[in-house]
Amino acid sequence: MTQREISKAVIRRLPRYYRYLGDLLADGTERISSKDLSRIMKVTASQIRQDLNNFGGFGQQGYGYNVEYLHEEIGKILGIDDTHEMILAGVGNFGHTLAKFFTEGKKSSTRRFRLSGLFDIDPSLEGKEVAGIPVRMLDELPAFLENRDVEIGILTVPTEAAASVAEFMVENGVRAIWNYAHIDLKLPESVVVENVHLLDSLMTLSYDLKELKKKEA
Amino acid sequence: MTQREISKAVIRRLPRYYRYLGDLLADGTERISSKDLSRIMKVTASQIRQDLNNFGGFGQQGYGYNVEYLHEEIGKILGIDDTHEMILAGVGNFGHTLAKFFTEGKKSSTRRFRLSGLFDIDPSLEGKEVAGIPVRMLDELPAFLENRDVEIGILTVPTEAAASVAEFMVENGVRAIWNYAHIDLKLPESVVVENVHLLDSLMTLSYDLKELKKKEA
Repeated sequence: MTQREISKAVIRRLPRYYRYLGDLLADGTERISSKDLSRIMKVTASQIRQDLNNFGGFGQQGYGYNVEYLHEEIGKILGIDDTHEMILAGVGNFGHTLAKFFTEGKKSSTRRFRLSGLFDIDPSLEGKEVAGIPVRMLDELPAFLENRDVEIGILTVPTEAAASVAEFMVENGVRAIWNYAHIDLKLPESVVVENVHLLDSLMTLSYDLKELKKKEA
Repeated sequence: MTQREISKAVIRRLPRYYRYLGDLLADGTERISSKDLSRIMKVTASQIRQDLNNFGGFGQQGYGYNVEYLHEEIGKILGIDDTHEMILAGVGNFGHTLAKFFTEGKKSSTRRFRLSGLFDIDPSLEGKEVAGIPVRMLDELPAFLENRDVEIGILTVPTEAAASVAEFMVENGVRAIWNYAHIDLKLPESVVVENVHLLDSLMTLSYDLKELKKKEA
C-alpha cells in the first residue's frame, strides 16, 4: 500500500473508524457498505470514501468493505499493529483512572498499549499498587527505562510539573508524550506530543447546545 | 455578525484558538498578527485566516487581530458567554478529577461551566463531599433538577450504565451530555452529545510516532 501525505484531519478521524470497525468485527459483521458505515458513524458516505481513498481505497465497488481487513489496515496505519510499552507519571485520581483503563480494559483497542510503570514523587505512594502495578518514585525512572523499550510516557502530573517531567522522560529515552497537564508542551523535534485538552470538547458541546436552542427558537 | 453554516472541523478548532487567545490576554498581549498566532499555535497563517473568515474576519489588514475582541467573539460563538450549569454522574476516580478541575481551576476557560451537583448510586458515598460538593444518590436527581437550570450532564459512569443514566438525565431536563463512558450514545434529537474517547488521541500519537521513526529510518 502506497501512502501519500495525509492531512492531520484525516488521521484524526481514523481512530473513530478503527473503533467502529472493531465493534462490527466483534459483532461478527464481515462486510459493510460505505452507506451502512455512514449511517452508523453519522458521517456522509462520500466522506468515508474520500477518507479511505487516502490509503488506496480498501473497497470494491458494489461489494462494500471487508471489515476485518479494513480494521487491520487502519490499525497498521495508526501504528497499533505493534505493541507500545508505556509509563505514567502522576498517580492522582486521573492517573488511577488511566491505569485501570489500560490494565482492566478488555477492549481490543487498548490491547496494543501496555502500561508497565507508574511514577510519582509522593513518598506515601511508594510501593503501593495501582491496577496491579507498583508505584515507583520518579528518581527510579532512569534505571527502570534502561532495559525496557518504553516509547510512550503518559503525563498526568500537575501543570507546573509537566514540562520538567516530560523532559526527564525524554532524556531517558521516551519518544512520545501523551500529555494531560493543562499546557501545550514544547519538546524537541525527536519527540512527538499529543496535548489533550478535555475542555475543548466541552466547548464544542456548548456550541452544539447553542445551535440547538437557536433552531428551536 | 452574520454566521454561515460552519463546518464541524472549524468548530472543533475554535476551542484551541480560544485557549491560546486567553493565554495571550492573560499575558497582556493586545494585538497579534495571523503570522505570530500561526507560529505560536503551529498552524499555517492561511488556515487561521480561513478559519476566522468563517465568522466575518475580525482582523484588519496589516493591524493583526485585537486579542480581547477575538477571544470574546469566539467565546460567544462557542456559547460560553453564558454560564452553563452542570451535574456529574459517576463519582469514581475520573469523576473526582473532573469535579476538582471545575471547582479548583482558576482558568478563565472553566469559569463559564459551573458544576453544581454530583450523583452516584453507591450508598457509601452519600453526603460525602468531593471538591466541596456533596454527593447525592441518583434517585434525588429529579428533585435536584426541578428548580435549577442545569443544561449539561457529565457522564463518568461505567459503560454499561451510561445509556440509562443519560436517558434519566434527559427525562429530567438535561439538554447536553458530555459522555466519558466508552460508548457512543444515541439520544433524541432534542439533546446534544459529545462522546469523548480518550484512546483516539493515543492512537493519533501512535501514528505520529510511527511517522517519526519512518523519517529517521
